[in-house]
Parts: sequence; structure tokens; C-alpha cells
Amino acid sequence: MGVPIQLGWQTRIDRLANLAINVGVNLQPGQELVLTAPLQALPLVERVTEHAYRVGSRHVTTIFNDEVGTLARFRYAPISAFDYSPAWLFEGMATAFRAGAARLAISGEDPVLLAGQDPEKVFRANRARSVAYRPALDLITDFSMNWSIVSCATPAWAAQVFPNMPKEAAVSELWEAIFSASRIDNQDPIAAWAEHNLALRARTKQLNAKAYQALHFQGPGTNLEIGLSDGHQWLGGAETAKNGVVCNPNIPTEEVFTTPHCTRTNGHVRSTKPLSYQGTLITDIIVEFKEGQIVNADARTGREVLQKVLNTDEGARRLGEVALVPGSSPISRSGLLFYNTLFDENAASHIAIGQAYRSALQGGANASAEELAGRGANTSQIHIDWMIGSSKVDVDGVHASGMIDPVMRNGEWA
Amino acid sequence: MGVPIQLGWQTRIDRLANLAINVGVNLQPGQELVLTAPLQALPLVERVTEHAYRVGSRHVTTIFNDEVGTLARFRYAPISAFDYSPAWLFEGMATAFRAGAARLAISGEDPVLLAGQDPEKVFRANRARSVAYRPALDLITDFSMNWSIVSCATPAWAAQVFPNMPKEAAVSELWEAIFSASRIDNQDPIAAWAEHNLALRARTKQLNAKAYQALHFQGPGTNLEIGLSDGHQWLGGAETAKNGVVCNPNIPTEEVFTTPHCTRTNGHVRSTKPLSYQGTLITDIIVEFKEGQIVNADARTGREVLQKVLNTDEGARRLGEVALVPGSSPISRSGLLFYNTLFDENAASHIAIGQAYRSALQGGANASAEELAGRGANTSQIHIDWMIGSSKVDVDGVHASGMIDPVMRNGEWA
Repeated sequence: MGVPIQLGWQTRIDRLANLAINVGVNLQPGQELVLTAPLQALPLVERVTEHAYRVGSRHVTTIFNDEVGTLARFRYAPISAFDYSPAWLFEGMATAFRAGAARLAISGEDPVLLAGQDPEKVFRANRARSVAYRPALDLITDFSMNWSIVSCATPAWAAQVFPNMPKEAAVSELWEAIFSASRIDNQDPIAAWAEHNLALRARTKQLNAKAYQALHFQGPGTNLEIGLSDGHQWLGGAETAKNGVVCNPNIPTEEVFTTPHCTRTNGHVRSTKPLSYQGTLITDIIVEFKEGQIVNADARTGREVLQKVLNTDEGARRLGEVALVPGSSPISRSGLLFYNTLFDENAASHIAIGQAYRSALQGGANASAEELAGRGANTSQIHIDWMIGSSKVDVDGVHASGMIDPVMRNGEWA
Repeated sequence: MGVPIQLGWQTRIDRLANLAINVGVNLQPGQELVLTAPLQALPLVERVTEHAYRVGSRHVTTIFNDEVGTLARFRYAPISAFDYSPAWLFEGMATAFRAGAARLAISGEDPVLLAGQDPEKVFRANRARSVAYRPALDLITDFSMNWSIVSCATPAWAAQVFPNMPKEAAVSELWEAIFSASRIDNQDPIAAWAEHNLALRARTKQLNAKAYQALHFQGPGTNLEIGLSDGHQWLGGAETAKNGVVCNPNIPTEEVFTTPHCTRTNGHVRSTKPLSYQGTLITDIIVEFKEGQIVNADARTGREVLQKVLNTDEGARRLGEVALVPGSSPISRSGLLFYNTLFDENAASHIAIGQAYRSALQGGANASAEELAGRGANTSQIHIDWMIGSSKVDVDGVHASGMIDPVMRNGEWA
């Protein structure tokens, strides 16, 4: 992976943009790109746009997210407004994806933007957005086309990660963390990602060969058996989209993940890191599962938002993903809490309630919705990850025979 | 109209935002707003968004225009890319308009952004955009819903208007000109606009009563008879959209305008101000009309772009609008060249090639396309205004009987 070298910020942000286009999205000559980004990510947007056109993109459309506008809405719009979301925009994106466009999301939102807002408004806005976003999200979760998420340091996010630093220093530190986790400082980041993808592929091969019936998580406040879906498939790193393009959907990524069976999880589990969900911080989540369904849920902060999320639809109380991440991953070793799922989910093993990824089932890409449901794949408007792994959590693999393998011990691969 | 008072910039930009929402768009409680703006207009976007939510808008979606991204496209994208435009976005906007959304455009683009670019690319990009934009533009030109355009001073625009000033001073001067033309410094801008609308209404009533068959423009390089469409209607200032909402589609506005007959214009005409068209400056346009069609066209700069524009489609060589503006209008008196149609078209009488406004024909809102065409209303993918009035140009009104009234003398109402 080469020796880390000292590079200027301009060079490193350009490398990140290059990586996003050529490894993350793997944008093809002539392919359109739909880019979403917070306004504060403009410097990275500009670099990404240039790299997109350099590979021959026909058009880059950037939809900027204006957080000041969002706050104005929460402050002044009538309560009924929060049941509305601009479906025309998301349906437009879905149309672009169906016509061959790729997608890149730049993440850098304020993790606590809506922390002080009425939870009823937050919930209704998120529910409306989930429904409106569905046509685009379906194409993304199905990997109908190549897509990726990368991140950009922004002042509000940096202030949350480094609360005791002056603003500029905090942004600078967050950039360091992003560059490091994204393998930007290697002599050849693209080669480093090829090597990293090979390592993740070796891990998924091994787990797929085991074909466990369930995973058993044990640790402080946690005793959870997660039944896996019939013919589940472990995935990690690069994915081949249905359009044949190999992309890296998350930069950074450290996880390997698969699909639980939505009626076969039992026990209780305690979250090991705060969850930043659409501007609200949900901490110390404790939930109890019975036959796949969350029957009890509590949290220290953000409890009301959590309860509302769980009531979104039938599938919101059931698992759509389980992922394993060793404590020795670079993000975990940084010791930072990022308040951003893209990073925090790569610092610890985690579960996600809501929609399953059909690609994480054998032959899932072409299976009917009925067949997937029959094999235990969950459906929901939401997909929310939260962290349940730590150095105090062990994971066992349970074979159909009842035989048990140690999979992780003290948060590391066993 | 009250005595001009000295107000701070923050107050004045807030007044402009208030005017844009409550007089320009006249946004209704619960109505969605689709806002387009250059990235540099963010301070005005934020104020506009707040005023939109204050009147009870359900959602404001802002589509920002990234000029750096546009330049990257011209620099790096392959030539074939320029035949593509993201129709999914414009069709999405049209869907929003059909469902009841209002539209506000903030104008502040760099007038010479594309001046150095390959005219072939500029033309192909504009043609592709015109085709893609059509579904949304049709709803706008038909006044299916309430809409408006206001403007925001941006560094690139200000540098063009005030080329010899330091950057900050130029932006500040441009703001002064915008505030002045938009009647922001009156004690009550909203009352000032009500008064202004009454004056424009009186002028259109008078012209409609005359029911001229043609207008005859005479001046240096100009001898042009513009036949008017059968049952044409003069409009100016506030308009009632089909959804019943009275809006002011342009802030500022000084013009009264109507629909020429697309086969009844003859003679030649010389432009009196440069036309800034999608980033290209077209100066000293000289064209000759024969039976409504431009049969010869030349220009000092931007000639190639002009020629390509005229070849866009059958209707691109015929008139869709003629407008009268006295030289005593506040914008004209400023003596400034704005390189922005919203301003420059309100400093001088002008014509527009391309699409006619159906509202500028009696009963046009509900007439069929065939009926409108039979009455002489032009159709085209484009609508481009250029200025032909000055203090040296006279305008006569020609009655069906052949009798002639002086309408303007030396650029003023006769």
C-alpha cells in the first residue's frame, strides 16, 4: 500500500474526487452523473465535476442540499407541510438512473441540524421523504446502476466531531480523518483500494462457505441471535451493478454484510455508539427482538424520534442487514466518533432495521419480490444502521447442525 | 411612492426577498415553490426561502446553477455530450408546476461565461436545453401557474457592468442598481408596485383600444413594419395566472408587450444594445425580415452563435413578441448596460424571436394551438429578446384603414 507521503490539501481533495469518480462510482465514458451534496461541499463538488467530465461524462447535475433552508422550514412552515416531500425531484432522479445515469452522494451534513426541532415534524418530514424517495432508493439498493457515497468535511460536522477545537482546526482535523480513512495518502490510492477490495472479498468468500444459519452476539447488555436469510450472501467492498459496472458504493468501507431473516432474530441488544439520524442524535439504544420484531425499544436521547421511526411501517421493526467490522479497522483505531453512519458503521459491527439489499442474497438481483420475502428478506421505506459491536462483544456463527464457530472475539476476527 | 430612505444592505435584500415572494410570485399559503438560482445568489436564496415559509409554503426546492461545473463541461466533455440535457430535471419541474407549485428564478449569471467557448458547443448545448426545458417552459409561458424572475448581484455579473471598478465596489454598485430598479428603497415597496402596475395597466388599456394592425419602427439602421397578430392583446406588469393568482412575472419591469403576426413583418432593424445570450455577447445585430421571416442576419460579435440560434427551428427566424419601453424608464435613465435581458429589455423597446406568449392574445389562454397559429402566433423552442429602441427611434401605430398614429417619438411616449 506504499508509504504515506505528505501532500497539500488541494492535491488530497483532488485525489479524493478522482477516487470518488474512478473507484467509487467508476463513472463510464458518456455516462450521466447525478450528484447530491450539501452546499458546504462545493470545493469537493467542483473537483468531482471536473473528474466526471474528464472521463467523458455527458452531464453532471448537482442537487445541493441547503441546510439553512431546511431550518427555515422547521421554523416557519405549517405542521401540515411536513407530510409533503418533492416526489417530482426523486422521481426525476429515478428516471435518470433508469436511463443510465450513475449516482454520487457527498455526505457532510450537520449531524445535529434538527436536534432542537419538534420530533413530530422531524418524523413526519422523514416519513414523507422516505415515501417520495422510494423510486430512486429502490434502484440504488437494487444496484440497478453504479453508485457511491463519499464525504466532505464541513464546519457543522467538524464542530460535532471535535467540539473543543477552533472551527478551522476542527475542519482541518476532520479532513485528515477523511483522507486517512479513504486511503488518500497512499502513494497510489487507486492501487490501495484494489488491494483493500481483495482483502474484503477473501473475507466474504470465507463466510459464504460457512453458510451459517445464525449469528450470536454477546456482550454487555447484548445477547442477540440473528437468524440469517435462506441463501444469504456476504458482500463487502466493490460490487458489480446490474449495468455491469464494478463500483465501490461506500468510501470508506471496512464492513462485510449480509441479509438477516426478518422473522428469526431473538434477544436484546445495546448500541455501542450514538446514531445520528437525519439531524437527531439517538444514544444508548436498547431493543428487544421477538421472532424478528422489535417489541421493546428505549434510548437515552432521541427516544421519541426512535419510537416514531420504528412505527414508520411494518418492516421498520425488523432487520434488513447485519455487518461485521473488526476493531482494528482504521476508522475504529482513530477512536473518533463521527456522528455519520458512513464512518461510524465502519468502526464497529452493526445491524440495520428496514429494507434489505437484494444483492446480499444469492441470485437476489433477479429474484421476484415474493421469492425474496419467502427467503426472509425484509422490506421497508427505511434503512437505518446502528452500531452494536465493540471490543467487549463476541460473535459466534451458528451452523444448521447447532455447531458453533467463534467468528469474532473482543471485537476482532477470531 | 414615498420618499427614498437610507436602508442597510441586509434590510434591502430582505425587502427584495419579501417583494419576490409576495408581489413577484405572490406565493399562496400551502403552495410549493421551485426556485432556481446561481450558487452566488445564496444570500438572497436564504432570505427568499424564509419568506416563502413565512407565507406558509409546504416546500421550497432550490436548484442551484454551478457555473464552474458548466465551464468544466465545456473544457473536458466530448462534443457529443452537448446534444444532451437532463430532461428528467425539467420534466420533474413541469410535474411540480402541474401539481400546483409556483416558480421563482433568481437571475445573476455571468453574462460572458461562455464567451471563449466553441460556438458549436454553445449552440448544441442551448438547443438540447431548449428541447429538454420545453415541458416546463410551456407551463411558464402559458401562465399555468404564478411565477416570477428577480435578480441578485454576483461578482461575475458586476464585473461586466462595472469593468473599471474593484470587485467589491462593483457588486455594491450593481446591488444599488437592482434595488433602485426594483423599487426597494421606497417607504413601502409593495405599495409602490401596486401603483406601478396601475400605470402599466392604463397604458395597455389605451393600446388595446387602438387595435393597431402594425407598428412601424424608424431610426438609424431601422425601418421595420411589425404586423400584429389577429386579436392581439397588450400586457404589462401584473398578470393573472390560470390558477387565479395575480403575479408580477418580472421584477423589475417597465415594458408593455404584445404578439406580432409571424408572417407580417417586413424591413430591417439594428439592435441598440448588446444581447447577452447564454454566456455569449451578441452586439450590433442587423437583420432583414421578409414576410415575417429573417432572411439576412449579421452581428459584430457573437455572429456565429446568432446564426446557429436562428437555425434552431422554423420559428426561430420569426417574431414572438414586440415590446415598448420609454427612455424615461428608471433602468433606461440609469444609463447602464446590464448585459442581462431582465434589465436591458426594460431600458428600451425590443423584439423577441421565437415562441409567442399565448396570454398576449385575446382569449389566448384557452385557445387551441391551431387557432393561435391561424391568428399569427409564432411557435419555437426559443424566446430571445433584443433591444431595438433608443432616443433616436420613432414608433408609429398603423390602423387597418392605413391611418397612422405617433406612438413613440425620440424613444418617449408620443
